Amino acid sequence: MTVLDVTQLQLILEQAFPGSEVPRVENVNGDTVIVYQPVDERHGRPGGTLSGPTMMMLADTSAWMAILAQIGPVLLAVTTSLHIDFLRKPDLTDLMARATVIKLGRKLAVVDVSLFSRGREELVAKAQVTYSIPTDKP
Amino acid sequence: MTVLDVTQLQLILEQAFPGSEVPRVENVNGDTVIVYQPVDERHGRPGGTLSGPTMMMLADTSAWMAILAQIGPVLLAVTTSLHIDFLRKPDLTDLMARATVIKLGRKLAVVDVSLFSRGREELVAKAQVTYSIPTDKP
Amino acid sequence: MTVLDVTQLQLILEQAFPGSEVPRVENVNGDTVIVYQPVDERHGRPGGTLSGPTMMMLADTSAWMAILAQIGPVLLAVTTSLHIDFLRKPDLTDLMARATVIKLGRKLAVVDVSLFSRGREELVAKAQVTYSIPTDKP
Amino acid sequence: MTVLDVTQLQLILEQAFPGSEVPRVENVNGDTVIVYQPVDERHGRPGGTLSGPTMMMLADTSAWMAILAQIGPVLLAVTTSLHIDFLRKPDLTDLMARATVIKLGRKLAVVDVSLFSRGREELVAKAQVTYSIPTDKP
Repeated sequence: MTVLDVTQLQLILEQAFPGSEVPRVENVNGDTVIVYQPVDERHGRPGGTLSGPTMMMLADTSAWMAILAQIGPVLLAVTTSLHIDFLRKPDLTDLMARATVIKLGRKLAVVDVSLFSRGREELVAKAQVTYSIPTDKP
Repeated sequence: MTVLDVTQLQLILEQAFPGSEVPRVENVNGDTVIVYQPVDERHGRPGGTLSGPTMMMLADTSAWMAILAQIGPVLLAVTTSLHIDFLRKPDLTDLMARATVIKLGRKLAVVDVSLFSRGREELVAKAQVTYSIPTDKP
Repeated sequence: MTVLDVTQLQLILEQAFPGSEVPRVENVNGDTVIVYQPVDERHGRPGGTLSGPTMMMLADTSAWMAILAQIGPVLLAVTTSLHIDFLRKPDLTDLMARATVIKLGRKLAVVDVSLFSRGREELVAKAQVTYSIPTDKP
Repeated sequence: MTVLDVTQLQLILEQAFPGSEVPRVENVNGDTVIVYQPVDERHGRPGGTLSGPTMMMLADTSAWMAILAQIGPVLLAVTTSLHIDFLRKPDLTDLMARATVIKLGRKLAVVDVSLFSRGREELVAKAQVTYSIPTDKP
């Protein structure tokens, strides 16, 4: 069902953001991927927690990975909307995203993303992300 | 009506993110602030446009500035939700945010944020951002 | 710039929901329409305010009207997402929606909707609504 | 962990909307409730599908039920925001909502809501709903 594996997705991420530290793809399984952001003190913000932008970036990136795992390397798929609810302060450890494709249409894909700290079950944030899929996809 | 001016808001931003390049507060007027992100090639992404995370960060930061302009230096106000629709590819120039407080309650503040490229009228993204205001504010 | 006027939009609404009480289109001007829901006690809910579903329905309907005013009677345009922040209790009077098209693409249209009580300036709710436009539009 | 059962929740709904046809609470289990809207032709709209407002109403109502199941009959809890992605046309049969509380704070509760047609697994819509909990709750 998936057409790209962990290694291929990781390579796409690294080529898309050359020279940057990018999140890491940990698992691909059916319509769901696990992607995480290794965390250190650079990501902190007032109150001693992970920054909101780090969480939003990971929600966006993991949604992109979940879609590409299904449709292949459509690099120009673009985010059309993102909604996120911040629920709890994450720990200063790996920030995990579980991203599940809940709609894969011809024009739009919608991904449900749960963010949590590695080793904990409770959610730190919850997002719904929509991508537009170019109709001239390979 | 506002209790902090451009200089004071800028200082809060710089102290909140020491050592980082932060957005710049350009104007404060009633319930609205203008904040911008100076843009160079580091912010680009595939397709040659500004990255989504840069836009989400600016929406979040400008909303925070708009709220602090009204209520003072409540550093621990935290984002509880952010919704953003991405509308057009921004130019590779200053990314501007016009953030207007549309509700300022005891517990929650809601901010309407328009993102556009400097010198152009059409929106590149539109966001609604909610912050929780700690009840033990100074 | 608009291709349908108030009377034509009202007729589309009435034909789309035959036998129902539908909102009323009050004004069309460029990319913006004003639509309102006449309100009586049937719309109330606990706490003596207008119901959330009434506000969401009006946000959705006014967004549809704003899009059709631009592109003509594309009856099968469908809502793909709706985000709404509820800000204040509306008065028990006409609920007004000012809906402005902020993106009109080939595939998607995004509409910014402000809800307020007739005769008052402050917003009671604020929404962003996305419609998918069928590619086989007339 | 839950403080109200199916019968008690149903009674609250019926008392809150006297004289109206209200959704039915089917199950309560931990942080999750199942609520459904019996569907007949009155709920249809152009294209022969369930209306968006019906889906938004059910997302909102099921979220309220999920919260009350946890905290008791706090009738004046109010929706502060609702985000919904519409994914597929529902069948003209019972519209089901599975609503799970993902945050229950002192001031805010956030509920994740999946909407589907009875007897089918795929989602027709996905929502995230936030309620404000009055601090003077009983």
